[in-house]
Amino acid sequence: MATSPTKAPAALRELGERARRASYVLATASSAAKDAALSAAADCLEAAGAAILAANRADLERARAEGSSDTVLDRLRLDERRVAAMAEGLRAVMALADPVGAIVSGSVRPNGLKVRRVRVPLGVIGIVYENRPNVTSDAAALCVKSGNAVLLRGSAGALESNKAITTALREGIAKAGLPADAVQLVEDARRETVAEFVRLRGLIDCLVPRGGHGLVSLVMEQATVPFVLDGDGNCHVYVDAAADLAMAEEIVRNAKTQRPSVCNAAETLLVHEQIAAEFLPRLAAAMPDVVLYGDPATRALVPRAEPASEVEYATEFLDLRLAVAVVADLDAAIAHIRRYSTGHSEAIVTGDLAAANRFVREVDAAAVLVNASTRFVDGGELGLGAEIGISTQKLHARGPMGLEELTCLKYVIEGEGQIRR
Amino acid sequence: MATSPTKAPAALRELGERARRASYVLATASSAAKDAALSAAADCLEAAGAAILAANRADLERARAEGSSDTVLDRLRLDERRVAAMAEGLRAVMALADPVGAIVSGSVRPNGLKVRRVRVPLGVIGIVYENRPNVTSDAAALCVKSGNAVLLRGSAGALESNKAITTALREGIAKAGLPADAVQLVEDARRETVAEFVRLRGLIDCLVPRGGHGLVSLVMEQATVPFVLDGDGNCHVYVDAAADLAMAEEIVRNAKTQRPSVCNAAETLLVHEQIAAEFLPRLAAAMPDVVLYGDPATRALVPRAEPASEVEYATEFLDLRLAVAVVADLDAAIAHIRRYSTGHSEAIVTGDLAAANRFVREVDAAAVLVNASTRFVDGGELGLGAEIGISTQKLHARGPMGLEELTCLKYVIEGEGQIRR
Repeated sequence: MATSPTKAPAALRELGERARRASYVLATASSAAKDAALSAAADCLEAAGAAILAANRADLERARAEGSSDTVLDRLRLDERRVAAMAEGLRAVMALADPVGAIVSGSVRPNGLKVRRVRVPLGVIGIVYENRPNVTSDAAALCVKSGNAVLLRGSAGALESNKAITTALREGIAKAGLPADAVQLVEDARRETVAEFVRLRGLIDCLVPRGGHGLVSLVMEQATVPFVLDGDGNCHVYVDAAADLAMAEEIVRNAKTQRPSVCNAAETLLVHEQIAAEFLPRLAAAMPDVVLYGDPATRALVPRAEPASEVEYATEFLDLRLAVAVVADLDAAIAHIRRYSTGHSEAIVTGDLAAANRFVREVDAAAVLVNASTRFVDGGELGLGAEIGISTQKLHARGPMGLEELTCLKYVIEGEGQIRR
Repeated sequence: MATSPTKAPAALRELGERARRASYVLATASSAAKDAALSAAADCLEAAGAAILAANRADLERARAEGSSDTVLDRLRLDERRVAAMAEGLRAVMALADPVGAIVSGSVRPNGLKVRRVRVPLGVIGIVYENRPNVTSDAAALCVKSGNAVLLRGSAGALESNKAITTALREGIAKAGLPADAVQLVEDARRETVAEFVRLRGLIDCLVPRGGHGLVSLVMEQATVPFVLDGDGNCHVYVDAAADLAMAEEIVRNAKTQRPSVCNAAETLLVHEQIAAEFLPRLAAAMPDVVLYGDPATRALVPRAEPASEVEYATEFLDLRLAVAVVADLDAAIAHIRRYSTGHSEAIVTGDLAAANRFVREVDAAAVLVNASTRFVDGGELGLGAEIGISTQKLHARGPMGLEELTCLKYVIEGEGQIRR
């Protein structure tokens, strides 16, 4: 690439250049070679179990000493079961179909040129992520399977765990004859390196930032490398006048409470005014642990609901809180969603076909659901096998990103001396 | 969208909000309705021919008074033939297949959920472009056909022409019953508005900057909206040891001279050392008008070649200049291309199947060509019908961008009350 990276220190640039060189080998490696590397990496990960757990204990001790919350500690913690799950994750990715080399379309032009579009790896993937060490092996597996090299920039809090995991993965990859530099950890875990990392233009072909608002806005403002945002999920469930209320109750409860800390959990409930009086008290009784925020119509029906303002409707709570609004009709529900949606997952519960069709057509999101929980918007549930994130942007990837989203298309044009007239 | 636009003045934001509202209508408009709008727009454009030419004369007079070059004046100039060509362009886009609504894949999950991925418009497209007024109607046609609203930010130099063209297009669209705001011109042509425009986050879903280095680096540094770069084409032709030299001569001459000012023209020639002594003098004689820059090996064979440095190998000349290097083998050719390529179009001329296969596999570009001129990398030539630009990035779109690249995919998930366990 002619564009030279800017402002990244030499050590980081050197990592990037090693990744680039490894990417050339990965890009042309056969599926069999990549699968052998993943299999060997899984074996090495299991063999290194004790070392990984020892490293993880060091991370945990430091996190405890720094007064980290139970949630942080739980995300960080590894045990034998979790290490085994990481190895199984590598083998599961190995078993997926290789997207590279697929011919997506092709034709012969009138002048005899043979044109085909072929799926190829992106090159070098950069991942910035937070405390969960299993992301290290999951992301590495998806990148290697799709023929990409990966630069992993985990958090300082998980550094020892990530180093131990990466060492095992690299050992396996090298044993299988592919370059160890297919997987590299950025060990300089100072905060400033993130800003440098996102400006490795020409060395990172696609950055996937996995983190909170701070990371996302840093990437939007400062990144010069191309990126796919794994953004917020302010997901809505709209319960239509024609909904089966028992089904609606199940879906809302599942979408809100089955795993409230994830991006595909529901954050706002919209209820058609015709069924609000019947549905809302019933729902409130069915979810006693959930704090409700409501507009005046909701609060008239559910006295325990606190007042909802702009803030609650715009918030991705990620816990047992739910904003509620009573809407006059489907139009009002769609208008509310257009105003507050982050474009992740939006659901309608209805028995009315016309309402379902309109909702599907008019709501603009990565996923729209009819009579199903938003929790299904997930790479595993949708059959992608695994995911490297869930894109809330429209360009390149939208919704769960699996192997295919780590590739792009290349035109291959074959002639016999054709020139343009 | 929850993200609110930053720093854009109220007038620009208002345009963006009108585009957003229009985009909701466009997104669900039938193919027939969009085609009727394009047909009426073509008719109105023809009917407004005199007004458009009068406006264009005003732009031309000002450009002449400002001492603009002949190239600038030619790009800016409209005549009856060019206005007719714009109308025909609208009708040609009308005749293309509508990409919206295509079901790209689908399946039923084990739990009975029906999942499909449907092609939908991106929403609002922003185009920043320079002096050629025909871009106004070409871009509008592609956006409307693909169900998007468009914000056009042309140059100050073409403002009167663009206003007249946009007025005609809007009149046609409204006559056909779609919102005129599907096509809007940013009339505030001050330089600063570009920087504000590229930060209309939440209002522009995809920005296509069409311009030179200054615009591209402004977008990379300042844009907060998603964008697809129509970047430089530092395209190479590699003439292999096994090339048919007559074919190679034709291809190099065509790639360099048929239209040197465009991004798919060749800028560097790489020649295998085994055939350099025979090929280079012959080529130099066949292209007397082309200024050559060469390495020492080239200059020993072609005395008129000037010395080539890093600068020449990295430059997209866009005129009758060509950098030349003699390379030891295919590996050296690939290494040179990896170093200097902008990822646009790269060609090999060879009769050796193994060399062709390696080149196709190992060279990373939007298009790789075997025994054909780089000039074929163009939406029309590749069968896309029309193009809104040629992407040199890997994410979302790579190579010529047609209607499909103005869309994205949406997951539609239909259940019967499924919840996640």
